[in-house]
Amino acid sequence: MFELDARLNNDTVFITDLPLCRVLLMNDSQFPWVILVPRVAGATEFTDLDEKQMTQYTFESLLCSEILSVLYKPDKMNIAALGNIVKQLHIHHVVRFDCDVAWPAPVWGRQPAVPYEPAILDEHVSRLKQAFSTKEKI
Amino acid sequence: MFELDARLNNDTVFITDLPLCRVLLMNDSQFPWVILVPRVAGATEFTDLDEKQMTQYTFESLLCSEILSVLYKPDKMNIAALGNIVKQLHIHHVVRFDCDVAWPAPVWGRQPAVPYEPAILDEHVSRLKQAFSTKEKI
Repeated sequence: MFELDARLNNDTVFITDLPLCRVLLMNDSQFPWVILVPRVAGATEFTDLDEKQMTQYTFESLLCSEILSVLYKPDKMNIAALGNIVKQLHIHHVVRFDCDVAWPAPVWGRQPAVPYEPAILDEHVSRLKQAFSTKEKI
Repeated sequence: MFELDARLNNDTVFITDLPLCRVLLMNDSQFPWVILVPRVAGATEFTDLDEKQMTQYTFESLLCSEILSVLYKPDKMNIAALGNIVKQLHIHHVVRFDCDVAWPAPVWGRQPAVPYEPAILDEHVSRLKQAFSTKEKI
């Protein structure tokens, strides 16, 4: 049975479940930052996905990138599967701007998260939920 | 026309050309670190690849991960498309060990590269060339 890692659960807000991945918004107001978690019990590496799951992951990752590009107009997308701390396979999709606090360094482990104000968080969550629900049907 | 970014060219050693990607070994003895560069002129994001290229990229990335897993037995693979500095689309495949110099942080921008001794570099390049040439035919 798939169960979301406790740390991921703690650091993020639920957006939606796509056919393969749970979509989470990182609660860090410094970067629009979405995490995809394939709902495959025990998966820690891409090589733990079967061919069908990998194809589906690719589709969902591109969908996520397209949505983030439309909503936030990044200077660069940073997409990464690291997992040195949280082993459960999860793939970061981070919108980067050349004026953000970490630019041009990667975002991980450099500056503590700055949680969104509740109203701002609600706004981002609503926009993302709407974008994923529209695009999923395409 | 595809042309490899000058910085990537300077920091790496050529391993092989797969059907889509150029395979490069990062000349940093601290981590077995392979970079895949889709030979698509002007591509900076995954969304710049068409569907066929994206499917081929996925296959080649999995192949790369499998080869690195067999050769180096990582504690974790780190796979990332960043590109904040070098814009040309390139995807890092970094073998991580829980005793490496950067663990558990990501490898980018933390410690300067330590180039391989020439004989050691030749050895890694030979092993990788052989592994890719064998696997490519499967």
